[in-house]
Amino acid sequence: MGNIYEESLDYHKKIKGKLAVKVKKDIKDFHDLSLAYTPGVAEPCREIAKDKEQAYNYTWKQNSVAVVTDGTAVLGLGDIGPEAALPVMEGKAILFKKFANVDAVPICLNTKNPKEIINIVKAISPTYGGINLEDISAPRCVEIERALIEELDIPVFHDDQHGTAIVVTAALMNALKVVKKKKEDITVVVSGTGAAGSSIIKMLKNFGVKEIYGFNINGIVLKEDYDKYDFLTQEISLITNSANKRITMAEAFKEADVFIGVSAPKLVTKEMVKSMKKDPIVFAMANPEPEITYELGKAAGAKIMGTGRSDYPNQINNLLAFPGLFRGALDVRARKITKEMKLAASYGLANLVSDEELNEDYILPKALDRRVAKTVAKAVGNKAKEQGVARI
Amino acid sequence: MGNIYEESLDYHKKIKGKLAVKVKKDIKDFHDLSLAYTPGVAEPCREIAKDKEQAYNYTWKQNSVAVVTDGTAVLGLGDIGPEAALPVMEGKAILFKKFANVDAVPICLNTKNPKEIINIVKAISPTYGGINLEDISAPRCVEIERALIEELDIPVFHDDQHGTAIVVTAALMNALKVVKKKKEDITVVVSGTGAAGSSIIKMLKNFGVKEIYGFNINGIVLKEDYDKYDFLTQEISLITNSANKRITMAEAFKEADVFIGVSAPKLVTKEMVKSMKKDPIVFAMANPEPEITYELGKAAGAKIMGTGRSDYPNQINNLLAFPGLFRGALDVRARKITKEMKLAASYGLANLVSDEELNEDYILPKALDRRVAKTVAKAVGNKAKEQGVARI
Repeated sequence: MGNIYEESLDYHKKIKGKLAVKVKKDIKDFHDLSLAYTPGVAEPCREIAKDKEQAYNYTWKQNSVAVVTDGTAVLGLGDIGPEAALPVMEGKAILFKKFANVDAVPICLNTKNPKEIINIVKAISPTYGGINLEDISAPRCVEIERALIEELDIPVFHDDQHGTAIVVTAALMNALKVVKKKKEDITVVVSGTGAAGSSIIKMLKNFGVKEIYGFNINGIVLKEDYDKYDFLTQEISLITNSANKRITMAEAFKEADVFIGVSAPKLVTKEMVKSMKKDPIVFAMANPEPEITYELGKAAGAKIMGTGRSDYPNQINNLLAFPGLFRGALDVRARKITKEMKLAASYGLANLVSDEELNEDYILPKALDRRVAKTVAKAVGNKAKEQGVARI
Repeated sequence: MGNIYEESLDYHKKIKGKLAVKVKKDIKDFHDLSLAYTPGVAEPCREIAKDKEQAYNYTWKQNSVAVVTDGTAVLGLGDIGPEAALPVMEGKAILFKKFANVDAVPICLNTKNPKEIINIVKAISPTYGGINLEDISAPRCVEIERALIEELDIPVFHDDQHGTAIVVTAALMNALKVVKKKKEDITVVVSGTGAAGSSIIKMLKNFGVKEIYGFNINGIVLKEDYDKYDFLTQEISLITNSANKRITMAEAFKEADVFIGVSAPKLVTKEMVKSMKKDPIVFAMANPEPEITYELGKAAGAKIMGTGRSDYPNQINNLLAFPGLFRGALDVRARKITKEMKLAASYGLANLVSDEELNEDYILPKALDRRVAKTVAKAVGNKAKEQGVARI
């Protein structure tokens, strides 16, 4: 991996910014200028002043998303600050454009105060059709996202939470078809109850999974420890571990049909996978090194192995979710992204793998598959209309 | 003008946003993805985390500007709010790109509180190489701009103040050549002491003009009324009207070589122009209708007439200033824009009109002249280096 880092550094230096702005229609003469700028521009201004919603008809609000971070939880690098987060946010913005024709721009904030972040995003929101929160540390990210969803009438979506959850849920939908198990009957162990893990747990419950064990650095999440937890872990404690068992992860594996890791490298041993129920499903997504490698997992008898890596089968990559999700939300000028819209995205994604194609090493479409964003967008947009959160 | 408004509305509806985002280098395969995004992107992140200044080498910060407004003073429309201001800010952004290859993005703020605006711009500043404040009402705009210049180490520039001032000063430089008068000897009447007028007055003093009368809706600005004024008018009172005369604008015209209007339509009569010193210079820039029309001014004996309109000679258009100014500042990664850099921009602009070309109806290059931004950029960048405010 050493080479890719040096190559990337060189790439970034040469390209002088991955993202640029584009003039959609050239300004060639004074007439063009008078249409796009003064004096003509006064007329769309007046129309929007009469009715704010007209901003969707006359401006880029119909297609723009702000990618907002405070740089506190960037990749595996942690709290590296807003400037250092910028290459990732620019990368996100070009993926939005490439895969879903969404005009996304990075906004890296020089504050870590959740109340300030909430106020800033509220203040800048008139400019955009949606807000993608990114790489903000847990549990602050949840507090920030909830306040913004409550207060704004454009979609607000924290990708680190829900992007991963949407793709994991889609992966699980298809994995269950391969092993012929029902969602109601399975037991799932989730390692990591931060931004991604807690959203995965909630989404799986929403999907219909009955029994989940949540683990974090302090061990299993338990209702009886409720008072010791932050608000996010408290919520998880209420929907997991129904029998309130104080067990180790190794013990939980013996009851598990599915393992989902969004935690740390090498937490899972061959023995643990071997102890799982028939046809183990293992999604080990710690990055860049998974909880257990593809090779080890398979050798231990995992029927289906998924990781975050593109060089192994079944890459669980949130690039499969966020472009199409925002495309769909923008297409119908959605006021929010509901949990039903997220689940619709998972179904859309899962259904892109036909029954004929489906097998233990192909449970998800590839990240670069151009059908993905369109299909997810359609599923999300239709659900938004059905739920009455679409403007058009 | 009715037609241009309807045509512009239609244009805006069809174009679906004047501004888009562009991916500078296509993402074709997983290798491209691993360079532009994970895992490779971690390396520029790490380099910037070690030294924030490296953001200039690895991100769009080297070429990006935020166009920030609160929508309180948009064109002649006044306080129409952030959504309604967006068409103007998008227009500004495409002009930045078209004329100076600057990647500018609009940020319209849903707050009018100067302290909040200051805090928000500070917070978003890591993302950009410069901040262009736009259409914020006076005197708040001055308070906001000063605080940001003080606190940030990237250029902060309120175009409504200084863009106009730079172009007016350039126009005056050349107009004085035509009428063969010296800047030290002239008396100037300025009508309007808000954002643009106060900056024009300061810049003309900095240029070397000795005597200026400032007028606003309450009449002439006087030192003896200091305590009645807001801070901006107080500052103007200290550098204008040296003999502290309580006179009307018509009386002031009798002493004037130059009239500069950034105020309201039809404030100036033929008789007033007739009463001016020999070879009157009249820049009547109220928009869309000037203080006195080109025809009336000329008929009254104005040697040189300038307006804000593109359909008459001598258009005083701040499009001549802001693209090149920011291009120059970004090229040298300037920490700020000093008054000397602004004056250098005026000189650069004025010098684009050769002695052979110069005449009463051609004192400024045309707004669409592609040499303008380059020349202004060079002048500004060189001055920044000379003053030690350039990073490179």
